[in-house]
Amino acid sequence: MIRPWQLEFLRSAFVMESDVSDIADVDIWIEEIRSENEATIRQKPIADLDKWKLEPLSGNLSHVTGRFFTIEGITVRTNWGSVAEWDQPIIRQPEVGILGFIVKKIAGQLHFLVQAKIEPGNINLVQLSPTLQATKSNYTQAHMGTKPAFLELFTKTASSHILVDQLQSEQGARFLSKRNRNIIVEIDEDRGIELPTNFRWFTLGQLKKLLRRDNLINMDSRTVLSSISYGTGTQDVADVLKILFFENESDGKLLISALKGDQGYRDFNYILSWITALKTQYELEVRPKGLSAVREWGYYDGEYRRFDGRFFKVIGVSAQVRGREVSAWDQPMVQPTQSGLIAFLLKEIDGVIHFLVQAKLEPGNFDIIELAPTVQCLTGDFRSGKSEYYVPYLEEVLSAPSDAVLFDAHQSEEGGRFFQESNRSMLVLVDERFDVSVHGNYCWMTLGQLYRFMEFNNYLNMAARSLISCISFV
Amino acid sequence: MIRPWQLEFLRSAFVMESDVSDIADVDIWIEEIRSENEATIRQKPIADLDKWKLEPLSGNLSHVTGRFFTIEGITVRTNWGSVAEWDQPIIRQPEVGILGFIVKKIAGQLHFLVQAKIEPGNINLVQLSPTLQATKSNYTQAHMGTKPAFLELFTKTASSHILVDQLQSEQGARFLSKRNRNIIVEIDEDRGIELPTNFRWFTLGQLKKLLRRDNLINMDSRTVLSSISYGTGTQDVADVLKILFFENESDGKLLISALKGDQGYRDFNYILSWITALKTQYELEVRPKGLSAVREWGYYDGEYRRFDGRFFKVIGVSAQVRGREVSAWDQPMVQPTQSGLIAFLLKEIDGVIHFLVQAKLEPGNFDIIELAPTVQCLTGDFRSGKSEYYVPYLEEVLSAPSDAVLFDAHQSEEGGRFFQESNRSMLVLVDERFDVSVHGNYCWMTLGQLYRFMEFNNYLNMAARSLISCISFV
Repeated sequence: MIRPWQLEFLRSAFVMESDVSDIADVDIWIEEIRSENEATIRQKPIADLDKWKLEPLSGNLSHVTGRFFTIEGITVRTNWGSVAEWDQPIIRQPEVGILGFIVKKIAGQLHFLVQAKIEPGNINLVQLSPTLQATKSNYTQAHMGTKPAFLELFTKTASSHILVDQLQSEQGARFLSKRNRNIIVEIDEDRGIELPTNFRWFTLGQLKKLLRRDNLINMDSRTVLSSISYGTGTQDVADVLKILFFENESDGKLLISALKGDQGYRDFNYILSWITALKTQYELEVRPKGLSAVREWGYYDGEYRRFDGRFFKVIGVSAQVRGREVSAWDQPMVQPTQSGLIAFLLKEIDGVIHFLVQAKLEPGNFDIIELAPTVQCLTGDFRSGKSEYYVPYLEEVLSAPSDAVLFDAHQSEEGGRFFQESNRSMLVLVDERFDVSVHGNYCWMTLGQLYRFMEFNNYLNMAARSLISCISFV
Repeated sequence: MIRPWQLEFLRSAFVMESDVSDIADVDIWIEEIRSENEATIRQKPIADLDKWKLEPLSGNLSHVTGRFFTIEGITVRTNWGSVAEWDQPIIRQPEVGILGFIVKKIAGQLHFLVQAKIEPGNINLVQLSPTLQATKSNYTQAHMGTKPAFLELFTKTASSHILVDQLQSEQGARFLSKRNRNIIVEIDEDRGIELPTNFRWFTLGQLKKLLRRDNLINMDSRTVLSSISYGTGTQDVADVLKILFFENESDGKLLISALKGDQGYRDFNYILSWITALKTQYELEVRPKGLSAVREWGYYDGEYRRFDGRFFKVIGVSAQVRGREVSAWDQPMVQPTQSGLIAFLLKEIDGVIHFLVQAKLEPGNFDIIELAPTVQCLTGDFRSGKSEYYVPYLEEVLSAPSDAVLFDAHQSEEGGRFFQESNRSMLVLVDERFDVSVHGNYCWMTLGQLYRFMEFNNYLNMAARSLISCISFV
């Protein structure tokens, strides 16, 4: 069944030209926002961070008010993978934030209200974010801070206008059980909104096109965009849509995969059983400990990092932004020390494109394993000779001929917590020589089957959702 | 879509007479099993339990080998309900058990392989359990104990024969994040199995009939039976099935509700958003603490209980069973000190029966709230004058006229951990005078919509699943 608003999303995904904004102007717009706001971001020793303290006994890093987030240690024990036990720092922020887009029909097409937003960790400083990015204290106005723009459109909207509303996880390797509410709210066509200069309307097709550029659409936008599904339809429906929306621009195969929610190479029931079996087999025990007790990590030169320099480190950052108002603050941030790569392998099976999905255990996961891309190297180095462990299917991704690469761009992690972290994101089509039988932690799914899991909490991880947001049917 | 095996389940649900077993003989069979096994179950002070120890510092109760389970303390903080913070003991058993039925076509009808099983906490000692009830050490044979009967049918079966395979939660008020794999495996029609005297085949219809008796079908059976869904179909399909399977025995309205997985009084998308909003609104923080530090609880007369005697207590039990082999062991068990009641209110809306579902927070929940029955009083007393708090919709359940009561029987909690705990379980139909607009923590759903959540982990709580297992279409 394809609902009316799913059809509207689909139509918008094919609209590349809009009367209200031209994506050719995006760079100029971003440059305007950047120059309106004079920003200085510089690194600073953690111990010198204003209003942040190292707790005397635990060594944990927290804000003097107890607000925002803390950086704590954990000990992880698991029977997944080759390392049975390790310590690491992790970001603890036990609250649910809101990431939301306002959408509205303009000239008959659904448009998304996008914000050009400055974050201290952003590559290029400004990236395009959802209409609303709010922490719980923002949206409950608990601390009487600045009220985020358009907040009331999300909190006072009749429920009938909520098109998407999901709780999705953050990165399980860096965040302890952190989740955000991903929401898309439609407002009436005739409802006028006065836009500040840092907000603009774009169609879904325009956003998909901008996603092909490096580090432009931020992580929060990508996770909300990934939540848009198009319903499930039969082959007939898919054929009709194909004719309606595009002629020779695309072969429509990804759209057909998107509408296949039930049957695929694997029956949905088989996939449910596969996940159940893995959650039964794998164990994950996460115990909190103080940062000062975390093995193989310590404070050096004002940073908190591993002795061997691997994976990531925690640094101190001092940010100052002078715009219409001046704000200045210090905060710790996570900075990767290695290059990251995420990729889905795609393969046509029985005429339908399938995604090779990995069941992956990460310490911050809510429910042991989540569905991840075929290759996800965010915490280990994937470059040849730089990694001490074998990554399945990495070779197929890196050696793919250029006409098999459907998508290839660098995408940033969230700039409020991660400092200049960007991961290469790829969709790679393999041919009939690629064996359809795969290792037990991997499973072929249609895009529609992935969307079906998306509706329920804690199934698809952030990296998988980020890649799915990059899929374009055009 | 209704799958072939879902149709087989549905057909079996209407079969009350089987060539292989007559439910009129069940009492005789159970009496045989009881007399073959001379069992002595008696209470004993916790401190005297053989092989169990109170840990010196924490006061936690654990087995000397570190196996089985522990009883520990927790501090709970939440903004749900009227009590913002409390301490309580909880059972910690961080592993996934298997609860499984073998099913097989006999004389053309699907039969379930049922075990008459002795558990120390069982009312009447013997209750009917699934084919397999195994802990992780049982099924991995980690400790070389007795291998459970029929284990190999579950572990060595080709995946194509797995009909149902779900991870479902235990009671969130008593267990800390405990889950079991609920599995139904079909074996070939011509596969002969030699049955020990404590195993018998029954149709789903026979089991549904036995569920109308008090404390006969155990909790483990009920949770697995609840996982059987029948697919989704249109009104037309439902009408055809109605004609196929029954004429004047039933009006088929519950079956129609069961097949409505998408549209109901509330759109499925609305329900997802309702759950997301509640999980965003409510917070649950559970921190471990030693039993000796748990406020308002302590050891008295060999039991661990609240000063005021409310809710439940932990007692020591010594069990001895002399059958073909002799086994004797001591263990702590949880015993309720108050009467329990669980009930769904049902109402016909637009010609389809809907269930009034409660979003309920319990400390052991995996994901903050789970979908619960309209009324669930397991931890508080529901009798008039005995309870200090108001229970919504309790009055409608207790004062329902007898022709509105579709189901009313006492059902037991799991007899391996709970001592003689039985809760009154009811399905009550309300009429058109009952207001369709309900409090924000409640939502009307079709049975098919409930089944849709059942497929995914951690949505329906144990009490809701227990009641759903009791639903009969006949």
